Amino acid sequence: MKDAMAKAQILMEALPFIKEHFGKTVVVKYGGNAMVKPELKESVASDIVLMKYVGMNPVIIHGGGPEITDFMKKAGKEVRFVDGLRVTDAETMDIVKMVLVGKINKEIVSLINRHGELAVGVSGDDGGLIHARKMKSDVDLGFVGEVDKINPKIIYDLIVEDFVPVIASVGAGSEGQSFNINADLVAGEMAASLKADKIIFLTDVAGIYEDFEDKDSLISELTLENCERIIDDKRVASGMLPKVKGCVSALEGGVTRAHILDGRIKHALLLEVFTKEGVGTMITKS
Amino acid sequence: MKDAMAKAQILMEALPFIKEHFGKTVVVKYGGNAMVKPELKESVASDIVLMKYVGMNPVIIHGGGPEITDFMKKAGKEVRFVDGLRVTDAETMDIVKMVLVGKINKEIVSLINRHGELAVGVSGDDGGLIHARKMKSDVDLGFVGEVDKINPKIIYDLIVEDFVPVIASVGAGSEGQSFNINADLVAGEMAASLKADKIIFLTDVAGIYEDFEDKDSLISELTLENCERIIDDKRVASGMLPKVKGCVSALEGGVTRAHILDGRIKHALLLEVFTKEGVGTMITKS
Amino acid sequence: MKDAMAKAQILMEALPFIKEHFGKTVVVKYGGNAMVKPELKESVASDIVLMKYVGMNPVIIHGGGPEITDFMKKAGKEVRFVDGLRVTDAETMDIVKMVLVGKINKEIVSLINRHGELAVGVSGDDGGLIHARKMKSDVDLGFVGEVDKINPKIIYDLIVEDFVPVIASVGAGSEGQSFNINADLVAGEMAASLKADKIIFLTDVAGIYEDFEDKDSLISELTLENCERIIDDKRVASGMLPKVKGCVSALEGGVTRAHILDGRIKHALLLEVFTKEGVGTMITKS
Amino acid sequence: MKDAMAKAQILMEALPFIKEHFGKTVVVKYGGNAMVKPELKESVASDIVLMKYVGMNPVIIHGGGPEITDFMKKAGKEVRFVDGLRVTDAETMDIVKMVLVGKINKEIVSLINRHGELAVGVSGDDGGLIHARKMKSDVDLGFVGEVDKINPKIIYDLIVEDFVPVIASVGAGSEGQSFNINADLVAGEMAASLKADKIIFLTDVAGIYEDFEDKDSLISELTLENCERIIDDKRVASGMLPKVKGCVSALEGGVTRAHILDGRIKHALLLEVFTKEGVGTMITKS
Amino acid sequence: MKDAMAKAQILMEALPFIKEHFGKTVVVKYGGNAMVKPELKESVASDIVLMKYVGMNPVIIHGGGPEITDFMKKAGKEVRFVDGLRVTDAETMDIVKMVLVGKINKEIVSLINRHGELAVGVSGDDGGLIHARKMKSDVDLGFVGEVDKINPKIIYDLIVEDFVPVIASVGAGSEGQSFNINADLVAGEMAASLKADKIIFLTDVAGIYEDFEDKDSLISELTLENCERIIDDKRVASGMLPKVKGCVSALEGGVTRAHILDGRIKHALLLEVFTKEGVGTMITKS
Amino acid sequence: MKDAMAKAQILMEALPFIKEHFGKTVVVKYGGNAMVKPELKESVASDIVLMKYVGMNPVIIHGGGPEITDFMKKAGKEVRFVDGLRVTDAETMDIVKMVLVGKINKEIVSLINRHGELAVGVSGDDGGLIHARKMKSDVDLGFVGEVDKINPKIIYDLIVEDFVPVIASVGAGSEGQSFNINADLVAGEMAASLKADKIIFLTDVAGIYEDFEDKDSLISELTLENCERIIDDKRVASGMLPKVKGCVSALEGGVTRAHILDGRIKHALLLEVFTKEGVGTMITKS
Repeated sequence: MKDAMAKAQILMEALPFIKEHFGKTVVVKYGGNAMVKPELKESVASDIVLMKYVGMNPVIIHGGGPEITDFMKKAGKEVRFVDGLRVTDAETMDIVKMVLVGKINKEIVSLINRHGELAVGVSGDDGGLIHARKMKSDVDLGFVGEVDKINPKIIYDLIVEDFVPVIASVGAGSEGQSFNINADLVAGEMAASLKADKIIFLTDVAGIYEDFEDKDSLISELTLENCERIIDDKRVASGMLPKVKGCVSALEGGVTRAHILDGRIKHALLLEVFTKEGVGTMITKS
Repeated sequence: MKDAMAKAQILMEALPFIKEHFGKTVVVKYGGNAMVKPELKESVASDIVLMKYVGMNPVIIHGGGPEITDFMKKAGKEVRFVDGLRVTDAETMDIVKMVLVGKINKEIVSLINRHGELAVGVSGDDGGLIHARKMKSDVDLGFVGEVDKINPKIIYDLIVEDFVPVIASVGAGSEGQSFNINADLVAGEMAASLKADKIIFLTDVAGIYEDFEDKDSLISELTLENCERIIDDKRVASGMLPKVKGCVSALEGGVTRAHILDGRIKHALLLEVFTKEGVGTMITKS
Repeated sequence: MKDAMAKAQILMEALPFIKEHFGKTVVVKYGGNAMVKPELKESVASDIVLMKYVGMNPVIIHGGGPEITDFMKKAGKEVRFVDGLRVTDAETMDIVKMVLVGKINKEIVSLINRHGELAVGVSGDDGGLIHARKMKSDVDLGFVGEVDKINPKIIYDLIVEDFVPVIASVGAGSEGQSFNINADLVAGEMAASLKADKIIFLTDVAGIYEDFEDKDSLISELTLENCERIIDDKRVASGMLPKVKGCVSALEGGVTRAHILDGRIKHALLLEVFTKEGVGTMITKS
Repeated sequence: MKDAMAKAQILMEALPFIKEHFGKTVVVKYGGNAMVKPELKESVASDIVLMKYVGMNPVIIHGGGPEITDFMKKAGKEVRFVDGLRVTDAETMDIVKMVLVGKINKEIVSLINRHGELAVGVSGDDGGLIHARKMKSDVDLGFVGEVDKINPKIIYDLIVEDFVPVIASVGAGSEGQSFNINADLVAGEMAASLKADKIIFLTDVAGIYEDFEDKDSLISELTLENCERIIDDKRVASGMLPKVKGCVSALEGGVTRAHILDGRIKHALLLEVFTKEGVGTMITKS
Repeated sequence: MKDAMAKAQILMEALPFIKEHFGKTVVVKYGGNAMVKPELKESVASDIVLMKYVGMNPVIIHGGGPEITDFMKKAGKEVRFVDGLRVTDAETMDIVKMVLVGKINKEIVSLINRHGELAVGVSGDDGGLIHARKMKSDVDLGFVGEVDKINPKIIYDLIVEDFVPVIASVGAGSEGQSFNINADLVAGEMAASLKADKIIFLTDVAGIYEDFEDKDSLISELTLENCERIIDDKRVASGMLPKVKGCVSALEGGVTRAHILDGRIKHALLLEVFTKEGVGTMITKS
Repeated sequence: MKDAMAKAQILMEALPFIKEHFGKTVVVKYGGNAMVKPELKESVASDIVLMKYVGMNPVIIHGGGPEITDFMKKAGKEVRFVDGLRVTDAETMDIVKMVLVGKINKEIVSLINRHGELAVGVSGDDGGLIHARKMKSDVDLGFVGEVDKINPKIIYDLIVEDFVPVIASVGAGSEGQSFNINADLVAGEMAASLKADKIIFLTDVAGIYEDFEDKDSLISELTLENCERIIDDKRVASGMLPKVKGCVSALEGGVTRAHILDGRIKHALLLEVFTKEGVGTMITKS
């Protein structure tokens, strides 16, 4: 009985958070360990389903770095990076799409759908969702792109019909070609375009550090202004940089809160959204 | 952190129950201690709000025995019962209505509305909700009535607009007079009329007993058939009888499950609805 | 036959008024003799039903002074007024609510519903309709309040569903307590909040007088400006003052016309709304 | 004041009739003197407008015998009847359409629209409303037709948009030709097709007589069965016959009540619909 | 097979035009030979039906000059014109309406409806579509009017219900009288009022000429500015003048493109709308 | 000009077909050469876009045999078939999905979307579209499946929002695994489940032959009954068999017409749907 009371207590603590988030759109950038370890994959999927059932509209965006590399190797393609960006020739682009859209996206959809017929996967081509253009750079990176325009109609339509959209970060060029785009940056722009309330990045670190070499300097709350200063001061680790930039573009586009969470923790999403134990770093407009 | 994990675990355990009840109507007969002790009153109110936010449609029905008696005494009226039914002359009927509709109903509405503008109180007159007729009996009981017909339109309208209806069990006679009706019986017929999925009676006992003098004989699950047998065998305590009859009429009217819960336990509703720790007695059709 | 022709003539005369008021919201402050004499009560109820059927949206607001006093006496409470305002301790507030919400409101609902399942009673708690705060005054009047904010959603919802809302003028404080508010003032603010076309006060006098001691000085039409001047000149009888103030706040809030009618006349409402025989005083913006 | 009371009384008497007819469709076959005398024309138009404003859906159908004959003479065409049916060659059919659709229909529309932008005229071609076929007869009557099928979509659409449809009884043949059809018969079938509640024929007699030569034998109420017997017994005057047949086909098609009214009486429609002074003969199913 | 390929090619060429016009409203002023020769009448009707089926909203407006004159002669009325305007006494106005509304309008409706139950005819009275006033002029022209105001509700309602409105250019005066209005001018104002995308005039000439006596000077494209200059320079033939003025008022009212087409060419409408072979003169805002 | 007339003529010939198919759902099984040759790919895409714009609801289903084999070879996997069915181990299943969903599906979406933001790709996981189970067979074929149940909600939702759904024939098993299903069979069941009007198979042959070795024995029309006889008589080529079975299951599921077209012909779809030159074999219920 005491146990039951404790349970009741915890459910009750979730009520103010459920009320606060009711009817709100939350973009979740899914990646890192949370996309690799089976136990974490399942915990993310069930967190998202819970968010949906208590009245939120989660929208998932994912990339897929390591699996693309694996597959390229399997197919005998050379893997090359310039400044952290994958050199993407036409054949590589085909592999990127196949892995992102045909494998990873479908795995996420399938994981969520064990709880019901909820998830629908889309990529940048579908309904003209992500228009992309070639990224400018000194070296020719091939089909590496950046967001040109987002047409969120298909996402709105899926939300209205109570589906959970799962978006593969592949962009559609103006002449039918596809572009490989950084999923963190897509997530930021998608959140802005959807007028989302919140964007959450699942990462493999505990959050943003005052000094990323000092593990005691984790920042739990940060203003947009300070966030931009940290970027300018080059105090953000290179792997974290696109995530932080995604936060900035989301907040500048009207999103209320951006979070960088430690996706290695089971149910990190759920803890962030439904308990006062916020985990990771939260960035707000002011 | 371990604590946070435990919280996550408990919220996750609620997910299958949230899914199961999503979009369902649940009639809650509110009464007993749960309507008296401030702490319990608040726990019931917050349980109902949680039910609403996670997608259920709770509908509350209440009576108000003890407070009516108090008020009659204050107003110098003699209080008389015949076979457990309050003899109700015109002046008593006025008091019944004033206490039920003007006091208790508004208190419940007010408690729920501390969490938002959710609750709306109605009584049998409003929108022709509860048509009543005089109850037949050997002794003239005055304005003691029984349900003649329920017109649930106003309740459906309130649900569609995302309100929580709170119903005072006063019936409207065909010539403008009011009738005092047992709230347990109204609850059963209301649940049937609303095609509710579940009806829950909050009581001051642990549930139905095989033998109500033997506290070890609590029944946790019961079929409608067995339930009727227990009634026929006069094995139900007189105070419990109308509740059990309310369960029977709800189940016969198409409701899937009826529950008799111990309202003296804090968050009894929440435990019943969102955890596997079902409390009290559940009666099912078969 | 001649008789029939006369009837036809009168119905035809109503046509331009029916057209004019079609789809408009009209707030009726119900009170005085019209709420006491059975014959008048029935005539008001049927006038309101006719208004509803020919396409108007009547919204009724009522107080209940004399009955509250009666009941307080019955319950042995001392009745005390300061500057025309009832000193309202917690127990008195309970009685106010019980009488207004549990007795008078239900009587009005019941009278209207003899013509169909039209009326639904609400008070300030329901759906957060009337937020109130303690009225400032030199003497502590207890739970005497004034309107803080009106949330008309529940009233709009009832109108859309073709119900006639009947509002008891009880306000809900921010911490769950209730406030006794002057119904005339509530009516004025409710009309403004509902963007009503018209507000009508049923009173026990013939209207506003140029000089209220001279029964020949009845004013049939008045501008808002002149109305405010009459108030400033203290030429309004004290009982009439809140009604006139209610008119002023309604007109300032966008209502087109305010009427003070003699509710002692049978079918005064109907005559005002459907015939050229306007009765009482009409106040217009300019 | 006494006068005002009398007015109120009469308006009140209309209330039960307004309630009874609320939301109902009433087909009015307009013809005879009521379509000729200016005063009667205006009274019919205002009766229809009143019906619309108090919540009924009037649908008007008209023919136009005498004006067609006038116009044919003016255009130098010979006028010929066989068994009461106008011999209709192609040129005559053109004149029939021009007079019915271009003159009479527009006059009715214009009369109603003096009260607002309410009426919309349609004829059998519009939206495929009245499909007609050539009437079989011994003598070739040319373009005299009978109803083959009614497609009421355009009428429903106009009603939903709160218009008053005014229908000219011209039928559309399957090959683009038009047919002259008896308006009484069209009215009966239209009422059945619209699932109208009531059909009313405005005529130049007081109603149906037991013996149409005995002016004291007016029948005020008649069952469908008796009505058919009267037809079989050839006790119906030839001019009345199509109206009575129209009543029969309406009632057999599901209409609840059919009325034959004396259109020479001003406001005959209004008296029939809104007072207890029913005028003329009412035919009911049983 | 080669033939089939050619067909496919032509259908494919139509695709960009179908896309461009999808969901757009196009006002077609119908007149001249296209309204006289059976073959042309049928080709216009089928062009309009095709426009409807591929997603456009065609709205047809017509006058009827020659047939009115014929009919007046038949009825023995003198025909008189002043400055190209028909002197219209009351009897003439009756004939105008009968011919336009009862004959020509119904013929157009009937021609279109051979392809389905699509067309619905309306004139200025219906639903208060065209409010007109007497045209000012030196000589009294009787019931010759000009547009005072257009209330397009009935046209929007018909479009929403997937009908093709066919409008006879008769105006309704404020006192129930009708006015004869130039159909070209009505078309221009109707297009503006409907916020149409395009207006097309079917005429008996090839288009607008630089110099209308030089058949080699046909203008295929013209800006609004140049169009107004041509009018000011009196370089437009008198018969063409109202059409050009109609184009001007449409463009000034927000219509994107105005066309003057040679209606003597079979399927001129279809060629203009669905092929790159634009025919006639197009006038654009700039 | 003669040319223009010929164009008009051909567009006009399409009108009856456009009318006939308006609002109808047509399932297109896309495959064979039409999915390989760039010119044919583009012609299919534009045919589908034209179908959409003239009011039909095309739904595309595709498989992808040859490309899967290519990719397996590239990835060094052994390719093995038993009775025409690909032996599909877990790794092969991954490749099947990547090629179908991540490559071919996106190519089709991209081709269609050159004409607008119309197409949205889905596979069996999305929204629980295709539930599959392991196909029973003597040899273990691994993840070769058959349709267990179709939940068409996501397809209906996309159609309502005016998208063109493009479906990859991958089935979702009950435990999250995927199944490789024959696209012809999926197409037949999808058409039945969508209550489509028509199903069209694009193949690499001219249609069904009386005797498939005799190229002069092409059957242009066939009843379902005869079709089943031909299957029973083993007169259908093995490559054609699943297509014919797809036709049979569609027709038995309520589809009106099934077509087997020669996809090697440019614009074969368009010719079938919009001209009288039907190409290939049509199978009808009776």
